[in-house]
Amino acid sequence: MNLEQIKEKVKNFKVEVPSWGFARSGTRFHSFHIPGEARNVYEKIDDAALVNKVTDAVSAVAIHIPWDKVDDYKALKEYAENKGLKIGAVNPNYFEDEDYLYGSLSNSNIKIREKAIDQTFECIEIMRQVNSKVLSMWIPDGSNYPGQIDFKRSFELLEDSLRQITKELDDDMTMLLEYKFFEPAFYSTLLCDWGTSYMLSKELGEKVKVLVDLGHHPQGTNIEYIVSLMSFKRKLGGFHFNSRKYADDDLTVGSLNPYELFLIFVELNKNFDLSLENKEISLVLDQSHNVKPKIPAVIQSINNLQITYIKSLLVDFGKLNKAQEEHDVIKAEEILKSAYETDVREILREVRKEKGLPEDPIKHIKESDEYWKIVKERGK
Amino acid sequence: MNLEQIKEKVKNFKVEVPSWGFARSGTRFHSFHIPGEARNVYEKIDDAALVNKVTDAVSAVAIHIPWDKVDDYKALKEYAENKGLKIGAVNPNYFEDEDYLYGSLSNSNIKIREKAIDQTFECIEIMRQVNSKVLSMWIPDGSNYPGQIDFKRSFELLEDSLRQITKELDDDMTMLLEYKFFEPAFYSTLLCDWGTSYMLSKELGEKVKVLVDLGHHPQGTNIEYIVSLMSFKRKLGGFHFNSRKYADDDLTVGSLNPYELFLIFVELNKNFDLSLENKEISLVLDQSHNVKPKIPAVIQSINNLQITYIKSLLVDFGKLNKAQEEHDVIKAEEILKSAYETDVREILREVRKEKGLPEDPIKHIKESDEYWKIVKERGK
Amino acid sequence: MNLEQIKEKVKNFKVEVPSWGFARSGTRFHSFHIPGEARNVYEKIDDAALVNKVTDAVSAVAIHIPWDKVDDYKALKEYAENKGLKIGAVNPNYFEDEDYLYGSLSNSNIKIREKAIDQTFECIEIMRQVNSKVLSMWIPDGSNYPGQIDFKRSFELLEDSLRQITKELDDDMTMLLEYKFFEPAFYSTLLCDWGTSYMLSKELGEKVKVLVDLGHHPQGTNIEYIVSLMSFKRKLGGFHFNSRKYADDDLTVGSLNPYELFLIFVELNKNFDLSLENKEISLVLDQSHNVKPKIPAVIQSINNLQITYIKSLLVDFGKLNKAQEEHDVIKAEEILKSAYETDVREILREVRKEKGLPEDPIKHIKESDEYWKIVKERGK
Amino acid sequence: MNLEQIKEKVKNFKVEVPSWGFARSGTRFHSFHIPGEARNVYEKIDDAALVNKVTDAVSAVAIHIPWDKVDDYKALKEYAENKGLKIGAVNPNYFEDEDYLYGSLSNSNIKIREKAIDQTFECIEIMRQVNSKVLSMWIPDGSNYPGQIDFKRSFELLEDSLRQITKELDDDMTMLLEYKFFEPAFYSTLLCDWGTSYMLSKELGEKVKVLVDLGHHPQGTNIEYIVSLMSFKRKLGGFHFNSRKYADDDLTVGSLNPYELFLIFVELNKNFDLSLENKEISLVLDQSHNVKPKIPAVIQSINNLQITYIKSLLVDFGKLNKAQEEHDVIKAEEILKSAYETDVREILREVRKEKGLPEDPIKHIKESDEYWKIVKERGK
Repeated sequence: MNLEQIKEKVKNFKVEVPSWGFARSGTRFHSFHIPGEARNVYEKIDDAALVNKVTDAVSAVAIHIPWDKVDDYKALKEYAENKGLKIGAVNPNYFEDEDYLYGSLSNSNIKIREKAIDQTFECIEIMRQVNSKVLSMWIPDGSNYPGQIDFKRSFELLEDSLRQITKELDDDMTMLLEYKFFEPAFYSTLLCDWGTSYMLSKELGEKVKVLVDLGHHPQGTNIEYIVSLMSFKRKLGGFHFNSRKYADDDLTVGSLNPYELFLIFVELNKNFDLSLENKEISLVLDQSHNVKPKIPAVIQSINNLQITYIKSLLVDFGKLNKAQEEHDVIKAEEILKSAYETDVREILREVRKEKGLPEDPIKHIKESDEYWKIVKERGK
Repeated sequence: MNLEQIKEKVKNFKVEVPSWGFARSGTRFHSFHIPGEARNVYEKIDDAALVNKVTDAVSAVAIHIPWDKVDDYKALKEYAENKGLKIGAVNPNYFEDEDYLYGSLSNSNIKIREKAIDQTFECIEIMRQVNSKVLSMWIPDGSNYPGQIDFKRSFELLEDSLRQITKELDDDMTMLLEYKFFEPAFYSTLLCDWGTSYMLSKELGEKVKVLVDLGHHPQGTNIEYIVSLMSFKRKLGGFHFNSRKYADDDLTVGSLNPYELFLIFVELNKNFDLSLENKEISLVLDQSHNVKPKIPAVIQSINNLQITYIKSLLVDFGKLNKAQEEHDVIKAEEILKSAYETDVREILREVRKEKGLPEDPIKHIKESDEYWKIVKERGK
Repeated sequence: MNLEQIKEKVKNFKVEVPSWGFARSGTRFHSFHIPGEARNVYEKIDDAALVNKVTDAVSAVAIHIPWDKVDDYKALKEYAENKGLKIGAVNPNYFEDEDYLYGSLSNSNIKIREKAIDQTFECIEIMRQVNSKVLSMWIPDGSNYPGQIDFKRSFELLEDSLRQITKELDDDMTMLLEYKFFEPAFYSTLLCDWGTSYMLSKELGEKVKVLVDLGHHPQGTNIEYIVSLMSFKRKLGGFHFNSRKYADDDLTVGSLNPYELFLIFVELNKNFDLSLENKEISLVLDQSHNVKPKIPAVIQSINNLQITYIKSLLVDFGKLNKAQEEHDVIKAEEILKSAYETDVREILREVRKEKGLPEDPIKHIKESDEYWKIVKERGK
Repeated sequence: MNLEQIKEKVKNFKVEVPSWGFARSGTRFHSFHIPGEARNVYEKIDDAALVNKVTDAVSAVAIHIPWDKVDDYKALKEYAENKGLKIGAVNPNYFEDEDYLYGSLSNSNIKIREKAIDQTFECIEIMRQVNSKVLSMWIPDGSNYPGQIDFKRSFELLEDSLRQITKELDDDMTMLLEYKFFEPAFYSTLLCDWGTSYMLSKELGEKVKVLVDLGHHPQGTNIEYIVSLMSFKRKLGGFHFNSRKYADDDLTVGSLNPYELFLIFVELNKNFDLSLENKEISLVLDQSHNVKPKIPAVIQSINNLQITYIKSLLVDFGKLNKAQEEHDVIKAEEILKSAYETDVREILREVRKEKGLPEDPIKHIKESDEYWKIVKERGK
């Protein structure tokens, strides 16, 4: 791939930003106020539009129901479109309703389970109105203590609920099943690893795929291998990009172990063309940071994704395969490292210049009147 | 030790219960309402008294400032005493004030750091009024991203703050330094392991000791070894008992890996007589469960602690030392296992009977009018 | 279940012992000599027979090829049968041949891959001769560095090899796919988790199932949940019992976190009758301890398995299900704990007495002339 | 720092290479033969000299006793000096002698403990003869099972042994205490974390410091923080550089998470000038890879260390401190990232050119007759 081809790809590389990434969030101990936080879905879309204005790298805004509930979803869609944005994945929330204390889609209480299913149907209806094609499911069901649930019964109830939901999906809709090692359940989690999500996605058919969140694995997990495996088995459907050191820390992308992110992109490139608009994989940021202002932090994550994407495009797969065939481990590794060690920031600056964008969007936004006006208006 | 001696020890074995263990708590996703939650410090003391009534195993109520702030602390002390309880450890809160977003006792902003120090002085004054002897410090300061803080500067500021606080302590007061691997800081934590707390406690002198919380270690850590080490170096000052499978899950005591808890008690027994009123170590429950009713859950934890304590008293140290000298690994292990495998619940029932207590306090409380009256009164 | 029923089950509960559990083993740093180690497969069978003599709980001896290679396998089978034993699972070794430095069944070098396949065919032929029905596959293939292998190509080669091997199996043979988080590969492992083994077992058909080794998971993994899931999906085929604190430590069974082992047995009981001779699940010890004499250590593991099995039979599932339906988390947990806290050693002693076995087989063997004769004969 | 200053520092940056890094090594499963392995200490020195010839970055060769035992140490020293090398740290081996099955310097058997002490005295005598100033102690003592050792007694015996050894050291000698989370002990390790080594180094005085091995921590540990803490407390004495994904994998430096290595160097630079010959910290490679040829692999590690060192020198500490003071988390992080993202390979190539070295030493060695002659000579 030559430089122009790479630049072309980077120009077309876009990710979804999460509405919740612009709003207040925190830990169980406290959610600190950060100046400039968005207070409703319209402000969140405003913020996404501002991010897109300085990066031209936002494909859509993922929304969260009920956090982003409105009366008129067509109007919401138009509000976004007028800002040059689409509504992306719709994320039903199964962790906040008091009824879900002992489970949502797997609750052995039939009324609560039906409530959770109905709530999901409602989200599918919202998808139709906002023209979203991705139902992004994170199901926190599990248990905190041995004995609390019967694993088999809970899993079967979940499976049955998901089957009903899958049937409700339109033909061009995809359901993504996110998995997570633990939290908020602290003993067992029904969808605790890629294996559980993959198993269900196989049983539920082609509309169902798996979503990988970078913070949802046990320490030491080789995520790039899982990504590769599910990709060539055609079951990887989406990504939640963030970073972590310990658990599901939801830090900005690339802030820890950026080499791992690079290796993940190397595997993604083998199976997807991430520069396509219709790339058959949903790429979404998912961060909820406590100590960074929201809009600049989203831009920082996008910047790190772009840097990583460019580096991953520099890998010489011809040479790599040859070194692999020859079992020349050092050479194979150095081919990856050679791409990774390249300073691609100049390429990114050129891409931005050619698109008429600020060359350093983080710096730009933090010095722009537009941003500070928002911060001021929203106050405390 | 014969059966009577063991029973005598169990009769005198008491732990502090945390005021916050009776109140609502949860995860960053949601704090579910659990019927019967205490809504203020007086209700928390009522609940502790109820637990004590059916277990006679509560030495005191640990309080948390500002959560348990009142106008008149002498009155609070009397309120507790009238219920047969003392006020135990005082826990200053450094994680909730908006000013502490970037650190409390280590904040490079002198005003905020002084605020945190003053707040601690206030807690020491509260200690004097409620006759508490333990200042229990958990300092969440750290950082979420590389570069956010300068490690040396932050550590030195923390050390300086702690030095000022230590000087303010009365002669019969102890400051405990709790450490925690991570959360709420997700990149670095100033007091991240026993080594950091131990280092400071050595530098700050005899009034300062280390507190171990069972949920605050990396996976796989041999906690009983750390407990042993700090005990015979005379720097172990306290315990927060809970259980976990993943991170700082704050589950009820003994719910996961009860054998580990037993091994910890075996080490404690070598260095302390836990049945003494003045045992030179502060034993406190610390749990914040989402799915169990609060009062029964505290009783369940106490029950598990009692079971574990009795088992640990059954270890034949004479035989164990002999097996160790002979490097008879199987025999040494079987001596521990022999104590652990013993069903000590009958001993516990006898102890309770002799004290005039219900033999099964969990069952008792869940069937008592007193408990359900509380649940009803407090409503939603 | 009444006491007699439980005793009946325990009497019939049998596990396979691994031939390698009687031989020298160690860490990468050193394999220490332990007096009494078996030096060849016949001595290993002798040791298994001795263990069986004092426990009557050994169903078969699992063998490892080439470690246990002999010229005449029919003679080996007869040797075992004369000692009252069968030959159990056959375990091909893919980690020791110099040709396998860069992979065995996934090696991109066709000659080496064919060698690995042929070696497995040879093991199947051995199975026919020793009347073994289980081919127990642990495939260490993976990589130590990023870039070393192409994940997709390696996985496909492995899958192809396994397909060929599956075809070679007789109708009544089962192939078990063991997975392992890491080691000896330190960057990626092709069968790194239950998901990878499960995926392959689904694609390869009914003859292929998954084997769980208790030391092969990331820290914190809820193994009992995985066991449950694969059991009711009818894909759990076998177990390697051992214990660990850190990685794949291969300690004697139950030496750490015995409650976890109990919870695993609770799940197994829901899906299998472990007392049956034909129980559709292969239960095998797998330990390679450095500091314990081999024969007593195997007995100790069996003893711990028996204790755990009895406790797991005491669980009152009727009450448990009711508590689960009522979301009474404390009661559900206490039902499990009630079984676990029971001292079942007396039951085990009675079972042994009724079978004419020594009541304390560990003590018995260490005081027996038979054992010390072996130790003396084998010398250094 | 300007470019010339950086180049000057890089030119003077040197590390020790371990003699064992050139010899065969492996896992507990197998030690594969890699062509070109050194077979004795003289060949190891030859290899180190060859590495130095193409990198000019080797300060000394660390040796391991008894692996590198010779009759005449003065001759060994001269052999190295004739090759332009010094003998570096002397590493006594406490893990291989059959007597040490149950411990070495902490063994409760006085004869074995004295043997271990005497063996260390012998190493100190060797240090005198080879003019080494660093006694590098890794003590594997611990236990595999609960009950096996008495923690207090074992720790006190170890402490006493170390006290005797410390007294034996000459005034200009330093003893480094390496710690390790686990392996070969799988239940407890006496020096299991920096806290244990630090505690002992404080009690033993100024001659004793702590050595950090990058593979010896629990997953998730913030190593750069520990490095900072011990550095400014003046107790960090040395480093074993390698890389890992899971446990103590001993991979080549920088092969996984190179950003973490960069952050560690940033902390080291604050406290040491690593370009000094007498830098008060011992920097040693420690790798024992299975799949890479030894000499190129050592060069690869040195190359990665040099790249990381240069990047760490690019950090603008003035700006960083300012951003920290202003709590501008994004800016502080971007300052670090800006240094890290820089492609410094051109600087390194220039440095090499100016020194008359090959610009790509890995490629150079793999294409050199000198290297292939060694490989051929040493055969299988």
